Amino acid sequence: MEIYYAMGAGVLSLVTAFIFNSLILKKSTGTEKMTQIADQIAKGAMAFLKREYKVLSIFVGVVAVLLFFLLDKPETAFNEGMYSSIAFVSGALCSVLAGFIGMKTATAANVRTTEAARTSLSDALRIAFQSGATMGLSVVGLGLLGLTLVYYIFTTHAGLSVPDTLSVLAGFAFGASSIALFARVGGGIFTKAADVGADLVGKIEAGIPEDDPRNPAVIADNVGDNVGDVAGMGADLFESYVGSLIAAMVIGYSVYEMNGVYLPIAVATLGILCSIIGTFFVRAKSEAKVHGALQKGLGIGSLLVAIGTWFLTQHFMGAEGTNVYIALISGLVIGVLIGLITEYYTSDHHAPVKNLAKASETGAATNIIAGLALGYQSTAIPILLIIVAIYLSHTFAGLYGIAISAVGMLSTLGISLAIDAYGPVADNAGGIAEMAELDKSVRKRTDALDSVGNTTAAIGKGFAIGSAALTALALFSAYAEAANLSAINILEPKVIIGLFIGGILPYMFAAMTMGAVGRAAFAMIDEVRRQFRDIKGLLEGTAVGDSAKCVDISTAAAIKEMMVPGIMAVVVPVIVGYVLGANALGGMLAGSLVTGVTLAISMSNSGGAWDNAKKYIEGGAHGGKGSDPHTAAVIGDTVGDPFKDTSGPSLNILVKLMTIISLLFAGVFSANGML
Amino acid sequence: MEIYYAMGAGVLSLVTAFIFNSLILKKSTGTEKMTQIADQIAKGAMAFLKREYKVLSIFVGVVAVLLFFLLDKPETAFNEGMYSSIAFVSGALCSVLAGFIGMKTATAANVRTTEAARTSLSDALRIAFQSGATMGLSVVGLGLLGLTLVYYIFTTHAGLSVPDTLSVLAGFAFGASSIALFARVGGGIFTKAADVGADLVGKIEAGIPEDDPRNPAVIADNVGDNVGDVAGMGADLFESYVGSLIAAMVIGYSVYEMNGVYLPIAVATLGILCSIIGTFFVRAKSEAKVHGALQKGLGIGSLLVAIGTWFLTQHFMGAEGTNVYIALISGLVIGVLIGLITEYYTSDHHAPVKNLAKASETGAATNIIAGLALGYQSTAIPILLIIVAIYLSHTFAGLYGIAISAVGMLSTLGISLAIDAYGPVADNAGGIAEMAELDKSVRKRTDALDSVGNTTAAIGKGFAIGSAALTALALFSAYAEAANLSAINILEPKVIIGLFIGGILPYMFAAMTMGAVGRAAFAMIDEVRRQFRDIKGLLEGTAVGDSAKCVDISTAAAIKEMMVPGIMAVVVPVIVGYVLGANALGGMLAGSLVTGVTLAISMSNSGGAWDNAKKYIEGGAHGGKGSDPHTAAVIGDTVGDPFKDTSGPSLNILVKLMTIISLLFAGVFSANGML
Repeated sequence: MEIYYAMGAGVLSLVTAFIFNSLILKKSTGTEKMTQIADQIAKGAMAFLKREYKVLSIFVGVVAVLLFFLLDKPETAFNEGMYSSIAFVSGALCSVLAGFIGMKTATAANVRTTEAARTSLSDALRIAFQSGATMGLSVVGLGLLGLTLVYYIFTTHAGLSVPDTLSVLAGFAFGASSIALFARVGGGIFTKAADVGADLVGKIEAGIPEDDPRNPAVIADNVGDNVGDVAGMGADLFESYVGSLIAAMVIGYSVYEMNGVYLPIAVATLGILCSIIGTFFVRAKSEAKVHGALQKGLGIGSLLVAIGTWFLTQHFMGAEGTNVYIALISGLVIGVLIGLITEYYTSDHHAPVKNLAKASETGAATNIIAGLALGYQSTAIPILLIIVAIYLSHTFAGLYGIAISAVGMLSTLGISLAIDAYGPVADNAGGIAEMAELDKSVRKRTDALDSVGNTTAAIGKGFAIGSAALTALALFSAYAEAANLSAINILEPKVIIGLFIGGILPYMFAAMTMGAVGRAAFAMIDEVRRQFRDIKGLLEGTAVGDSAKCVDISTAAAIKEMMVPGIMAVVVPVIVGYVLGANALGGMLAGSLVTGVTLAISMSNSGGAWDNAKKYIEGGAHGGKGSDPHTAAVIGDTVGDPFKDTSGPSLNILVKLMTIISLLFAGVFSANGML
Repeated sequence: MEIYYAMGAGVLSLVTAFIFNSLILKKSTGTEKMTQIADQIAKGAMAFLKREYKVLSIFVGVVAVLLFFLLDKPETAFNEGMYSSIAFVSGALCSVLAGFIGMKTATAANVRTTEAARTSLSDALRIAFQSGATMGLSVVGLGLLGLTLVYYIFTTHAGLSVPDTLSVLAGFAFGASSIALFARVGGGIFTKAADVGADLVGKIEAGIPEDDPRNPAVIADNVGDNVGDVAGMGADLFESYVGSLIAAMVIGYSVYEMNGVYLPIAVATLGILCSIIGTFFVRAKSEAKVHGALQKGLGIGSLLVAIGTWFLTQHFMGAEGTNVYIALISGLVIGVLIGLITEYYTSDHHAPVKNLAKASETGAATNIIAGLALGYQSTAIPILLIIVAIYLSHTFAGLYGIAISAVGMLSTLGISLAIDAYGPVADNAGGIAEMAELDKSVRKRTDALDSVGNTTAAIGKGFAIGSAALTALALFSAYAEAANLSAINILEPKVIIGLFIGGILPYMFAAMTMGAVGRAAFAMIDEVRRQFRDIKGLLEGTAVGDSAKCVDISTAAAIKEMMVPGIMAVVVPVIVGYVLGANALGGMLAGSLVTGVTLAISMSNSGGAWDNAKKYIEGGAHGGKGSDPHTAAVIGDTVGDPFKDTSGPSLNILVKLMTIISLLFAGVFSANGML
């Protein structure tokens, strides 16, 4: 019964997303020039997705075959390899579809938001937010529907037992994870290569403003916002969402049997309904109220979840209900708190960013030192909050509590992701206004939306990291259970070795992705310089640059550069598991969790703070635009670009992906490996 | 008997150091101007040390009293608190004394090296190296003599049993550790505040060269080389040295009884003798041969140790001899390999630094991104080497193997530290040549010595990190044994919580120390700007700046800023142990070990690479001095200053210190704490 409700909620979520999308498409795309620019962006984004999906389909195919053979154990009664393989492909497909819908909508909504902003802030907000909601609801709808459908078919039609189904269901999360990693890394490289390239040549060398139509890399930059921030973020959280559900189902079954499986599904079902209700409360008449409107929607959604889950926990858990409820709510609350602390460290309303702006007065070096120190320092409170969530949820409801707190944190994902995904649309809308040379008042309105979007993006990033940490931890527990490890003892040298291997992986991954952005940006810089040099009249505005070429460079670089880090993430856990054994692999997962989460938080927050310190100076502080402190702050912002939009957020997925693949292979590894 | 030999070797080491020191003092200090400059540096360094020691004596006093009461357990027959306290004060005193001797010698040798360089490279090398050797031999001499003396008095005169003595001997390492932490952090802040301040105002704003006598912060910068690189590095390795010995003795006793205790002492005794012999082979006639001469000394010392320890292991371990020998040699070899890989990543002879220099062509932002990526990437191989050392030594000789491999790695410390501590003397000598406006040929000779010094310093830093990791791991095992933990299970949420707490501590510590350098540098910048503005004729060279004031600013800032991170390192493990218990504390130590070592390696190597990329450009590549790439590289170098000389190396000590204090308190904590 619970499964039918869940599938129903998934369908409802997708239908609502479809309605939002239709509402957006009904709006006007404005002047011919606007339509033309939007077309270029949409085409660029689609071209990227097409090429990315082509490569990914090969990857998915190869991995599906490998899973089929590697996980096919003769001693089990059912073909574990085949079912894992099917689950894997389904998870990958759902993730791809969610990303595709989100991006298709975002590239339609951007120009319509610009057009609406010509007359009304409120209308512009509605379109941008509806686009975000389409994304958010598609992610949770496809997540819950896909997961429950696979579960339903395996248990009902294929006749698998529940534990067998749960053991292959990790394949679904693995599929989602792989797509997420490539989408985040590829999208991140694409967007930052374009951004860094456009900024370094345009703003610094040619001295033309941001989003200036003369800069041929600007279209690529706007495409990047869509493929990186929309599709990437969506895939990231899709993965956390299904990962946390699966971890809770696996642990839940072993502790509470079917009730333990149904509770997370019921919470997700409720969360979808509450998110849909929440979206109807997002309306604002004036600039000052945009932030409040978004918070209202999220607040109402969260409140409804908080109330509804009380009844669900009582229903499914009986005497344990209140304890499990506390665990669940601790996740929900702490997710919000991590978001707020992220905002504290990265918004220019608070001391950290103000001090960072001040440090720009003595030059780029002190700006960089202060920004890095800010990022390092900002790891403390979020991780202490995660510790509190672990402590509370485990004290009240054991390992299941940790898993269910992650489910709680992500239950309102439908609306929280909507708020997050609205930002890039507003950002794009501003870019289009600039390129189409619309009246300054339009840009002012989109800037108001965008500035709120920056804050919500920061909160969203904090949320993504917090949920990734809890999800990874829940999956880690599920892994230990699946591998029959009653203890992973860090006094054993193999576990210490695993811990160290895990410790260096996030660093290597960060190095690779930063290097990739650097290389791709160089290529972009060369191309933009070439165009400024070769295309007569480009700088004077009498000739048009070759934007398509720039999009192409970013696309090619992103596709090429995402492969090595992506494959590393998939291959290393399997090798460690085979060679050093399940114990050492447990150590590796713990090591990568600790360095991955700390590095991810510090990189995201350093990057966000540099960005806003620059904007704060551009707002007139410390000499304003064009001053020496501004130049220093621009350097910080450029360093922060790959930090906050490529390496930092990819690390979340790395950590989760490695845990999921370990969970999937748990039964195959021996405790102590071959060495 | 072994104890007498060890004390004898300790005394011999100190006598040799005294002879080297006397030989140095016999040399001429050159012209009046040179003598005067050297006096200023020596006085500044002493003024700093005095103030630092004053503060530290309060700290040591307070901690000694706390240990006396906190560790006094009524159930043990002897007063554990009192003996721990005595050991602690002894360790602190020996560390202070070693630092004092090293710095006193270095500040006498610098000007004499300059004077010798006026006529002969070979003579200059001899003086600089003798100064380094004084430091190296004092460190190992005081380390072994102090440790064995305390051991001898406790067992013979105070009548303590061997296990009781070993349990309080951790106090000796704790004393050394505390001093090391403050010396590294305080010295690091001093030197980088002066360096950054001198560079930002002098080189960038006023456009005068490095070490220009007109810059009033230059004396402070030269003082900094002594208090940071000489005293700080010495205290760091003093601590690793005694820490590794104590860990091996504690584990050794539990596995092999007295033979397990005597072997590390015997290896250290042999290491001292071989180091002294090695020093006699360091001679070079021409510039090209300096590097070779230093390597020859180290090579001969290491070879003799490798041969001699074979007999020692056979003697003490009998049938297990060869296995223990393999463990020991794996440490010795891997220490060298880590040094070489550090050189690969930080020397301008290899691809990484060349690529970093190239990345400066597109500006400071790409230089910073590339430098950070280089640092992240460089964590992989050293940690894989550490993993190999752990695997080999544990496979052949269990936990004792890990401890003894750390002892092996540090057995040649007498000579390897000599090579390391020679660098800052050569650096200072060059500074004095510049300030005293000597002939360019003098500076050229000191530059030749200095450039080799940079390479050896990089190797030394890699070595310091490698030995810190192995020592911390050995101490970690000793801790688990002392706390009666048969397993530390990372599936327990408290251990995971500990792991996360441990994971954020290095980040917080790095943030604090970087922030401290930033604040101190601001104060220095203000002062130098003020002097350039207020003192008429300073820039024209007709008036003299107030160098003492600059030294004073660095001193005050360093003393003030070292307190919070230092106290945090001591207090947090104790609180975690009491509140969350010994298990969680074990998790914390593992977490801080993993993030601490990775962060330390990445920061040290990024910093070293930025430094040499700048020098590489100054050598004429990519436009040379004054070009845009050079400006970009200078920014990278400035960011790298606190990375490589303050935060990075301090993290080694943080990790060791927290493990040592945990070992000392191990008996006091309950397994699961109060929560």
